[in-house]
Amino acid sequence: MLTTMSLEEFGAVLASDAPAPGGGSVAALSGAVGAGLIAMVCRLSIGKKGCEAFTEELTKTVPKADALAAGLLRRVDLDTEAFNSVMAAFKLPKQTDEEKAKRTAAIQDGYKEAVQSPIAIASECVAVLELSRNLLGKSNPNALSDLGVASQQAYAGLEGAIMNVKINLPSIKDENFKSEISTELVQLLKQGREAKEQVYQFVSDNL
Amino acid sequence: MLTTMSLEEFGAVLASDAPAPGGGSVAALSGAVGAGLIAMVCRLSIGKKGCEAFTEELTKTVPKADALAAGLLRRVDLDTEAFNSVMAAFKLPKQTDEEKAKRTAAIQDGYKEAVQSPIAIASECVAVLELSRNLLGKSNPNALSDLGVASQQAYAGLEGAIMNVKINLPSIKDENFKSEISTELVQLLKQGREAKEQVYQFVSDNL
Repeated sequence: MLTTMSLEEFGAVLASDAPAPGGGSVAALSGAVGAGLIAMVCRLSIGKKGCEAFTEELTKTVPKADALAAGLLRRVDLDTEAFNSVMAAFKLPKQTDEEKAKRTAAIQDGYKEAVQSPIAIASECVAVLELSRNLLGKSNPNALSDLGVASQQAYAGLEGAIMNVKINLPSIKDENFKSEISTELVQLLKQGREAKEQVYQFVSDNL
Repeated sequence: MLTTMSLEEFGAVLASDAPAPGGGSVAALSGAVGAGLIAMVCRLSIGKKGCEAFTEELTKTVPKADALAAGLLRRVDLDTEAFNSVMAAFKLPKQTDEEKAKRTAAIQDGYKEAVQSPIAIASECVAVLELSRNLLGKSNPNALSDLGVASQQAYAGLEGAIMNVKINLPSIKDENFKSEISTELVQLLKQGREAKEQVYQFVSDNL
């Protein structure tokens, strides 16, 4: 389990010559700390001067941000598992025709999993970006930089996750699957980028 | 020590209503995982097909990336300590004129420290971005997404660190100090953004 490792241990295994954990797990971690910062910003805003009108909304956002943080942190492990399942499929025997067919199918399933994992990370990073956009003008000004950092982290997670989809997509033979994924990526990137830009503008104008 | 906490524990203390750790420590962590990915990409490239011509450069980059990863990871703790020293200064006694003067000086010193910490994070994130730019076309194509994620993380760390400088700058009275910092921020952002854009373009064109 990567998530029970210390930051130091995670840093060491990341930098090692093992291909996993790699960019997919890092993208998930980035989204998770972004969501954690959103939860912190809400907790530092509830009942604070200037935020009184938004108590209900801030209070409702806390469990949403906490759930996204927990979900994305789980994906730090899940993404590495998905990657490892592709690697395992490549090691299957390929002597007989039956073995070859089984191996090819396992590799294809592995790649689909290795693509669906970062798609889920991307989608959850967009949800974090939407939470950060929705807090503009409603949260504690003393934590405005934290709100900005949250959106930067979620956006880096989104872009990173998309790169992890794109590197595996050419290995998939199912054209319908590929076409659906590509459409989804475009939508997620558009939505996430708009939210990030809006948060950036607000933070820049108010810091 | 934050860096000896597990990812799960760090996530929990981040999301809590304690103002630190906050965005500054997260920016440092983001840069650290970016640097860690650079080190991994180099280790996965040395001696690999197509990378033979760059063995010396890849080998030289490993200790640079490892050092940046270690340094930025240390800054996860240092940034929270800097923040706490401002908070401690505010709690100093302020009955007599002498106490007031001491407290004001301690607060000013604390703010300067709280600004110098993210400036160092920003500068080291730019160094990570330069390493990633320098690897374009020289690293293992199977790890191209990891190189892209590295630069996204370092760039998010840079932007996040800058936000953490900007939120504290108005509290500092030393105009020369403020002016020097502002000039440095502009340069770091320009350099980092250029490197990030170049990596993004290369990764997008080749994934």
